[in-house]
Amino acid sequence: MYWSKTLIPTMKETPEGADIPSHILMLRAGLVTQVMAGAYTYLPLGLRTLRKAVEIVRDEMNRAGANELLMSALCPISLYEQTNRVEAFGNVLIKADLQRGNKKIHVVFCPTHEEEVTDIVSRFISSYRQLPIILYQIQTKFRNEERPRFGVLRTSEFLMKDAYSFHTSIESLNETYKKMYGTYCKIFNRCGLPFLAVEAESGPIGGDASHEFMILSANGEDKVIHCEQCGYAANMERAEIGSRSCDYAQKNVQLKEIAEVNTPGAHTVEQVCKVLKAKPSKLIKTLIYVADGNPVAVLIRGDHEANEYKIKRQLNVEKLELATPEIIERVTGAPVGFAGPIRMIEKIPIHADVCVMEIDNAIVGANRSDKHLVNVNSMRDFMPMRIGDFRNAVLGDACPRCSAPLNLRNAIEVGHVFKLGTKYSELLNAKFLDDSESQKTIIMGCYGIGINRIIAGLVESSHDDTGIIWPVNLAPFEVVICPMKVADDAIMQLASELHDELWNSGIDCIVDDRDQRAGVKFKDADLIGFPLRVVIGEKGLAEKKIELKWRWDKETTMLSIENAAEQITNLIKAERVTGERFANINQSNGGFNNNGFNNN
Amino acid sequence: MYWSKTLIPTMKETPEGADIPSHILMLRAGLVTQVMAGAYTYLPLGLRTLRKAVEIVRDEMNRAGANELLMSALCPISLYEQTNRVEAFGNVLIKADLQRGNKKIHVVFCPTHEEEVTDIVSRFISSYRQLPIILYQIQTKFRNEERPRFGVLRTSEFLMKDAYSFHTSIESLNETYKKMYGTYCKIFNRCGLPFLAVEAESGPIGGDASHEFMILSANGEDKVIHCEQCGYAANMERAEIGSRSCDYAQKNVQLKEIAEVNTPGAHTVEQVCKVLKAKPSKLIKTLIYVADGNPVAVLIRGDHEANEYKIKRQLNVEKLELATPEIIERVTGAPVGFAGPIRMIEKIPIHADVCVMEIDNAIVGANRSDKHLVNVNSMRDFMPMRIGDFRNAVLGDACPRCSAPLNLRNAIEVGHVFKLGTKYSELLNAKFLDDSESQKTIIMGCYGIGINRIIAGLVESSHDDTGIIWPVNLAPFEVVICPMKVADDAIMQLASELHDELWNSGIDCIVDDRDQRAGVKFKDADLIGFPLRVVIGEKGLAEKKIELKWRWDKETTMLSIENAAEQITNLIKAERVTGERFANINQSNGGFNNNGFNNN
Repeated sequence: MYWSKTLIPTMKETPEGADIPSHILMLRAGLVTQVMAGAYTYLPLGLRTLRKAVEIVRDEMNRAGANELLMSALCPISLYEQTNRVEAFGNVLIKADLQRGNKKIHVVFCPTHEEEVTDIVSRFISSYRQLPIILYQIQTKFRNEERPRFGVLRTSEFLMKDAYSFHTSIESLNETYKKMYGTYCKIFNRCGLPFLAVEAESGPIGGDASHEFMILSANGEDKVIHCEQCGYAANMERAEIGSRSCDYAQKNVQLKEIAEVNTPGAHTVEQVCKVLKAKPSKLIKTLIYVADGNPVAVLIRGDHEANEYKIKRQLNVEKLELATPEIIERVTGAPVGFAGPIRMIEKIPIHADVCVMEIDNAIVGANRSDKHLVNVNSMRDFMPMRIGDFRNAVLGDACPRCSAPLNLRNAIEVGHVFKLGTKYSELLNAKFLDDSESQKTIIMGCYGIGINRIIAGLVESSHDDTGIIWPVNLAPFEVVICPMKVADDAIMQLASELHDELWNSGIDCIVDDRDQRAGVKFKDADLIGFPLRVVIGEKGLAEKKIELKWRWDKETTMLSIENAAEQITNLIKAERVTGERFANINQSNGGFNNNGFNNN
Repeated sequence: MYWSKTLIPTMKETPEGADIPSHILMLRAGLVTQVMAGAYTYLPLGLRTLRKAVEIVRDEMNRAGANELLMSALCPISLYEQTNRVEAFGNVLIKADLQRGNKKIHVVFCPTHEEEVTDIVSRFISSYRQLPIILYQIQTKFRNEERPRFGVLRTSEFLMKDAYSFHTSIESLNETYKKMYGTYCKIFNRCGLPFLAVEAESGPIGGDASHEFMILSANGEDKVIHCEQCGYAANMERAEIGSRSCDYAQKNVQLKEIAEVNTPGAHTVEQVCKVLKAKPSKLIKTLIYVADGNPVAVLIRGDHEANEYKIKRQLNVEKLELATPEIIERVTGAPVGFAGPIRMIEKIPIHADVCVMEIDNAIVGANRSDKHLVNVNSMRDFMPMRIGDFRNAVLGDACPRCSAPLNLRNAIEVGHVFKLGTKYSELLNAKFLDDSESQKTIIMGCYGIGINRIIAGLVESSHDDTGIIWPVNLAPFEVVICPMKVADDAIMQLASELHDELWNSGIDCIVDDRDQRAGVKFKDADLIGFPLRVVIGEKGLAEKKIELKWRWDKETTMLSIENAAEQITNLIKAERVTGERFANINQSNGGFNNNGFNNN
């Protein structure tokens, strides 16, 4: 490929509205361009990287015995009504009415394909002999993103690899789940991503039924908890907290008398702390929920965050919602922001996070408008019905496995594996006859990868001040050839010969044949981040040498022209397999890979 | 690949609602399944053929120097308003409102991408130095199909290769147009399609500015005109008709006196013929149009079809529409169906197709309700303002180039190349600075291929009573290996060794490892249409031989087990390049390929 024959609109300036590295660099390097908020076009270089990611995903899925198909994006809305997902998706679901003659056809643009694939399986699979089977596709999904942001990380149209597995037994599901987990590790390793597989919510199957694959990145919207000692890793919803038992009856300081204080208009932790000149860790938040229809109170320390997944699990309820202002007023007798545990136990059950029990002389709402109570002490002044783990883990909490202090990292979710169970097969009537001819419901798993996020995640985790740093396996071109003087026929001929030889030996390269200064070419090469740069200059040519430089190295090396193509080919092919050169620089960036089934 | 590990739901019966071979066979062979009217899922085998077509298209586009990108399906409706295509597409355009916070975003799902690509070019291309450039994508299009039918041939969601070229001059456009034309010929040849490139409407550029690529097929919805003597080919709108001049003043029979006859309620050609016991060729249809705002009459022989493209061209008008009943009544004084040329000349201009002039003692409308006139003769009773070619060509008309009788064929449109000119670049402000720094509008071409139609078109043109006949280049698997007894370890081991050896040498094959009778396996192999069938049986094994059969041959041949994989590899690789074996059988089916720029 020649630079002058394609479209690579690099930019010097940071584009307006872009504020994280992947967004800025993908625009500046001419990989993508925005069509509207939440929809991007992949320009030639961007599409090359995207297609390389697609091919890695496809290759590993095929090796794992998965069968590729391609489902339609259009789907009758009735299929989503059968699984109650029109409501569940809400505003995310993109719907349209198609006028056909005098009929209107109600359709959705699929945000995911559990419905379509289960419907297919229900029609074509009927015997245990046809199971297990893994079906997958690499296909465009549509989801209305209320707040599209961060470039291609959060959009309304994106490319997803979604796989679905079908089984006669939980054991068979577990086996495929492990295989997919291993496949995902291979995929993200081949892509050079510093990923971490973390435990995620378990869903209907229970146990370790769901893992998210996270790219560690300072700008990630997700937070993950990670124990560097034993390898325990979980997302925020799921992360357990190790031992933090305390002697509830014994406080370390003198317990003072309760007093009511004025806190006019202060109904947030921040406001109360300001008025009372107290630290948030001295406060007890009293959250009123409706759990399966019944109001309950959950007490959380002021500087902690409630974790609704944990609350649901411990209270053993299906549905949990924050109470409406009306309910709060009825239960507490005060407007929102002034609830407290004192005398509430008579009205509704109180559940307290362990850390709440340790606070001495705490501040709580007074259940009266504009009033709080100070010097409140657990066990003396209130006794919860249940004490447990109701909050998100924080930096330094004990690891639930080894008690070492937990680390907290920002991350980008790039993949998810999930044991679905029979949720969809039950509703869409996907059954099989077992070997004794009795009819059973098919058990399912699902496995997703956001392909665009592989690209953006790589850029987030691998760049420097001058631009992107691609591993050879995802680079738009593995090699950039920079002839220093395009008017010099000898230089251009060598560039073109090298180009042809490299392509013939399976190396993709681009010749920067623009009539530009070296500085401009080098800056663009660094910005785009081609792994290997080859410079052909007058001086080198006189000595029959060309200059090589890896994107991540400072030093250059000279190479004899004689067998340059062969040597470059060997370098690139070795790096494709091992990714070692790239991995070396990236380890110093704080990234790390994870190959095992880390929680087993 | 092993049959038991994938999903191939073949069917014995013709599925309900399917009535053309491609639809029936693609469903029966388990290639596709319908999700809703106008939307299909490609099952594993179907997707394999689709992806082979995609790779052929991509490979040839890249060879032609085109640059692949991937534009979003979502597009703000405002871009379509700028080109007035919201109205032009009408009900075909699929629109949706995305709720984002308290804002509604109006989007369309792109039916084609002239708008998006021209917008990109307007932003990133500014100099003649960046031109010419060809951009293309292989992407899913959405169009509301009022009457989805014929399986994947006419759907609301389909895969399209759409390319757009950008130029500084018409000469440069013409050069790229020729290159694309050649590329399309290569693509369809590699796919084994019996195609014909036909002249199509010229559009704003004029001249030979548009060609359609047609697959000849009895079930095609389009009709093409073809001269087998000189190669002239055009679609119905475009096809010219060779000399059919006649001596208007001289009729061959005695001219009778005009008489008015009763034709109560007869306002179609068919009805009038029935009432008057006449042949349609004796009738003159008087069509009232509004041409650029002015009513005109066009006379066409009763058994011919008016061609509005020709009328527009000859009348040199932009807009032509059939007149409303109100206008017809005002102009003729009679309701629709009773218009005639007599005395109309005083009111509006009359234009007549040449063939109308030859009819002696013709039947025309009387411009009175429920009345027609008989024994009307041109020149004696009416004189048109213009005599010309206003109708569609019919079988046997003279070729406009060589006067040989024209042939009429049904066909499926699979590709279209089109010189767009400046229509979109003008409206979307895509300009460039030429070498004298003056600003000019970019000149465009566009080039589309319906990928799904390649597959359906192949099936339409290449099948027999037992199933599909694939060329190796599109076949879901090139080779099917049928072990005759799956309980026999020796047979299964040979099957599996052959499978592995073939895959390792780059041949894709599937082992039918189902515990089924030979008849079932052979029927499915023929139905799906794998090009080469390999049978491993007990008897053969004893003689160290396996049996080969091409899908299109009746005879089988025996092959020594010794170097079977190598020999099969050579056979398949040779067939990939030449397609000769496939072409031979297909020529006898009446198909033929076309390599040249047939109208130049």
